[in-house]
Amino acid sequence: MATKEKLNCLTRIRVLSGDQIALGPGKVALLEEIERSGSISKAARKLGLSYRRAWTLVDTMNKNFESYLVKGSAGGKRGGGAYLTPLGAKMAKAYRAMEIKAEKAIQVNWKTIKRSLKQTD
Amino acid sequence: MATKEKLNCLTRIRVLSGDQIALGPGKVALLEEIERSGSISKAARKLGLSYRRAWTLVDTMNKNFESYLVKGSAGGKRGGGAYLTPLGAKMAKAYRAMEIKAEKAIQVNWKTIKRSLKQTD
Repeated sequence: MATKEKLNCLTRIRVLSGDQIALGPGKVALLEEIERSGSISKAARKLGLSYRRAWTLVDTMNKNFESYLVKGSAGGKRGGGAYLTPLGAKMAKAYRAMEIKAEKAIQVNWKTIKRSLKQTD
Repeated sequence: MATKEKLNCLTRIRVLSGDQIALGPGKVALLEEIERSGSISKAARKLGLSYRRAWTLVDTMNKNFESYLVKGSAGGKRGGGAYLTPLGAKMAKAYRAMEIKAEKAIQVNWKTIKRSLKQTD
């Protein structure tokens, strides 16, 4: 039964520094992929981003935090790998924790809303 | 000191029914303005929306719920007023409650992130 799955409540969290998004769903997914793959280009491919786009997202994050979230390992821009700094790992975890807690916090009211939505099929 | 205000964490909640947004920040703001003004066109003006756009948002909400969130009072489409049904008022309140609870739930992790952001000025 696909009935229930069509009704959904999404929470999207964005960390803003002035007019820049320091962290959001896309950036955190990128951090996690960099952690897994050890490479910006591999992470970009996995997420369907251009290398340039992924690099820009990393650059925005790095510039908005006190210290870098992602650093390059030896080998130059594309050749070398990349890794999350301890701060990068900490920020990704804190962001995911916010998502989980927010989702939990809305459940009671979401159930109230869900009951009043048309049950599509 | 504008320092702190530039660092912000926004939570945006969307209620989806299939590929339609049944409730989101814009729709709930519209519900609240309709409640205040008793009119879709006044609410639209207040929110900087065209009448057509506001009407479409109301129509989407009405179609996605078991019963209408907004009804027109006598006088025809533009002439007459509009009002929130009890269900409309209940859904707007439940949505705002989700926002408040989500925001509260993320505070600890948000403070962790905030401390690591560059303090802009």
